[in-house]
Amino acid sequence: MKSDIDALMAERGFEALFVMGEAGGNHILRYLAGGVKVTHAWVLKQRGADPVIICNPMERDEAAKGGLTVLTTNEFRYMDLIKEAGGYFEGEIQLIKAVFERFEVSGAVAFYGLMDPGKAHLMLSRLAEQVPNITVTGEGEITLFDEAVTSKDPAEIAALKSVAERTNRVMGEVIDFVAGHDVVDETLVQGDGTPLTVRDVKDYLRGRLMEAGLNDNENTIFALGRDAGVPHSRGEYEDILRLGVPIIFDLFPCALDSGYYHDMTRTLCFGFAPEEVQRAYEQVMQAFDTVMDAITVGEQAATYQEMVCDVFEEHGHPTPRSNPGTEQGYVHSVAHGLGLQIHERPRFGSVSEDVIKHNQVFTVEPGLYYPDRGYGIRVEDTVFVNGDGQVESWTPYPKDLVIPMRSETD
Amino acid sequence: MKSDIDALMAERGFEALFVMGEAGGNHILRYLAGGVKVTHAWVLKQRGADPVIICNPMERDEAAKGGLTVLTTNEFRYMDLIKEAGGYFEGEIQLIKAVFERFEVSGAVAFYGLMDPGKAHLMLSRLAEQVPNITVTGEGEITLFDEAVTSKDPAEIAALKSVAERTNRVMGEVIDFVAGHDVVDETLVQGDGTPLTVRDVKDYLRGRLMEAGLNDNENTIFALGRDAGVPHSRGEYEDILRLGVPIIFDLFPCALDSGYYHDMTRTLCFGFAPEEVQRAYEQVMQAFDTVMDAITVGEQAATYQEMVCDVFEEHGHPTPRSNPGTEQGYVHSVAHGLGLQIHERPRFGSVSEDVIKHNQVFTVEPGLYYPDRGYGIRVEDTVFVNGDGQVESWTPYPKDLVIPMRSETD
Repeated sequence: MKSDIDALMAERGFEALFVMGEAGGNHILRYLAGGVKVTHAWVLKQRGADPVIICNPMERDEAAKGGLTVLTTNEFRYMDLIKEAGGYFEGEIQLIKAVFERFEVSGAVAFYGLMDPGKAHLMLSRLAEQVPNITVTGEGEITLFDEAVTSKDPAEIAALKSVAERTNRVMGEVIDFVAGHDVVDETLVQGDGTPLTVRDVKDYLRGRLMEAGLNDNENTIFALGRDAGVPHSRGEYEDILRLGVPIIFDLFPCALDSGYYHDMTRTLCFGFAPEEVQRAYEQVMQAFDTVMDAITVGEQAATYQEMVCDVFEEHGHPTPRSNPGTEQGYVHSVAHGLGLQIHERPRFGSVSEDVIKHNQVFTVEPGLYYPDRGYGIRVEDTVFVNGDGQVESWTPYPKDLVIPMRSETD
Repeated sequence: MKSDIDALMAERGFEALFVMGEAGGNHILRYLAGGVKVTHAWVLKQRGADPVIICNPMERDEAAKGGLTVLTTNEFRYMDLIKEAGGYFEGEIQLIKAVFERFEVSGAVAFYGLMDPGKAHLMLSRLAEQVPNITVTGEGEITLFDEAVTSKDPAEIAALKSVAERTNRVMGEVIDFVAGHDVVDETLVQGDGTPLTVRDVKDYLRGRLMEAGLNDNENTIFALGRDAGVPHSRGEYEDILRLGVPIIFDLFPCALDSGYYHDMTRTLCFGFAPEEVQRAYEQVMQAFDTVMDAITVGEQAATYQEMVCDVFEEHGHPTPRSNPGTEQGYVHSVAHGLGLQIHERPRFGSVSEDVIKHNQVFTVEPGLYYPDRGYGIRVEDTVFVNGDGQVESWTPYPKDLVIPMRSETD
């Protein structure tokens, strides 16, 4: 959690952390500084001290909303530094030097954030040359923030629960919307007689997300038939909805207020399901339940990937374990952590060394994919391992494969 | 333009470009690979050859939509590389090595994209050690892409015109919505008698943006009175709209389909404007018109900043030239280029060496800010310098300061 940062810095021998680069999408900036609407900012966190944020004076009011002490670039004569250095890149190096001098930073400084990698490499190489009393470093494999986010604090849990509740509601609204259509020759049709398309569903979805204060950046997967068999295909706008065609509906929006994500998937057949799809669905649910029943604090995350491979191989499906690189059968890992990022630690792939911890939030999402046979199946909840080690699903929406059309049930 | 990339590579002596890191928000990936909905991808562009995209096999269908040749990570045994290397970070280094071997890359390779700067520094340092026949490099001050985007090709111009047209429409819808309210004691009120707030306006705006296929990531500025005097303040949700209070409405959404931006600002007083605000508004319009009339291909961009300082200093306002670092009067630069990024080259600050070119797209946005006197003024169009050197504004929405309430005009 956030309160572990000083200890994580001490373990690594870091005297300071420095966050730089783009503000939009910079989850580390957001983690330290809150969801402030700034276009650019730098954050310095020294060990044992509260972080401070440095921003353009125009953005001082917004930056202050995160609760950190705000310094403006004017206090470091940033415009003069740019002029003296003859450019923005060199000017930013001088700004960072000036910040380090003002706060008497020395020793190992680890850099984080979001920026162009080539530019970052040049900038940090130059800083290392120009500031002899600091050691410029970074983290490649598992960063201090990757560690910190593997357990959530109460404020984060509240934010995640709120986005969970809203996402479940929106999924229900969209499924009800589809199920409310008339059917002509097994094709779903709108009031004007035109067929219902993925575009119509996504247009409706967008309104529901907006109403709920959620943003999916148009990434929602609503993929039919063969497309459902290619896990990250988003679905084709012009595809027409028909009874009995399996649909993967994977909804993973971000809350506009907090920046936290929820991630849930249901596989749906409106009206009826083909026998092969029904059988594969039951096998996916068997894998899902096996994992849910087995989640235990202290267990290796990779264990759950093995469990899912056991279940699927027993039913004769290729898996990444039996057929590395397979694009049919089970083709991904069973889960991922999430928070301010849609994918974060813990990792669940077979090479992961992460373990299950208290206050951890992650998905559980086994799936089977047969694009050439016209289907894919995935079922996904976001789950929380609470302080007592109990597993709570935050995705209560029903998991039925077959969704009756309302006209059938009236 | 995009077609200049080979020439820009030759000028710099680059044999290859390699784009890496986050896919979301990675404008260079989008520039080369189109608006593909992938979570992760790498792009290799060798001089004289078309770029190729490397992605997870799950995302191959989406990646192919950009028109590039797609290779999946399976073709490079990525999962095995991760296992053999003992981690994802080291595995990615081995993947990049394998891609370079496959395409026989040698010589200077420049890296771009979007990633954690500390991680990028480590990764590129390691690549430099491990791949002796390449020279790892990057660009700090003005990158090849910064150069390329300073003129737009016909496909980009069409995309930018489309987002311009939609953004102007949405601004009109929102202003009409506000002007349609009743007024009680100079306060705008809703049908149920409650006062109209910034939150109500932003809720309405969100629906209009959605309808138009635009996304503002909640960044729109609708800032009242004192807040309008702090240029990047977004406005307070609970603020109530009143007659005669100046409002800065700065709308800069991105098209969901193309990823291109438009950027426009109007300053509005509903009902009437205070005299001081009216006077400042006229001075801002004088600066605006001065710049618009003077834009000439081949001219230094920084010239226009000087022109605006001339106008404002003549009227007695502090400027960044007369009072460096001022937070009152004129406090920013007059313009910025835009495209797939909301801010890109050309730059217009006094230290910029950029020049006006054909097929260039940029804002013109002088402003005056007096938070302590309860107001700020900014007027902003996005303009296009066409192939004949003529300047077209793509922001035709009227620039009136005073917006009559509909109840007055009925």
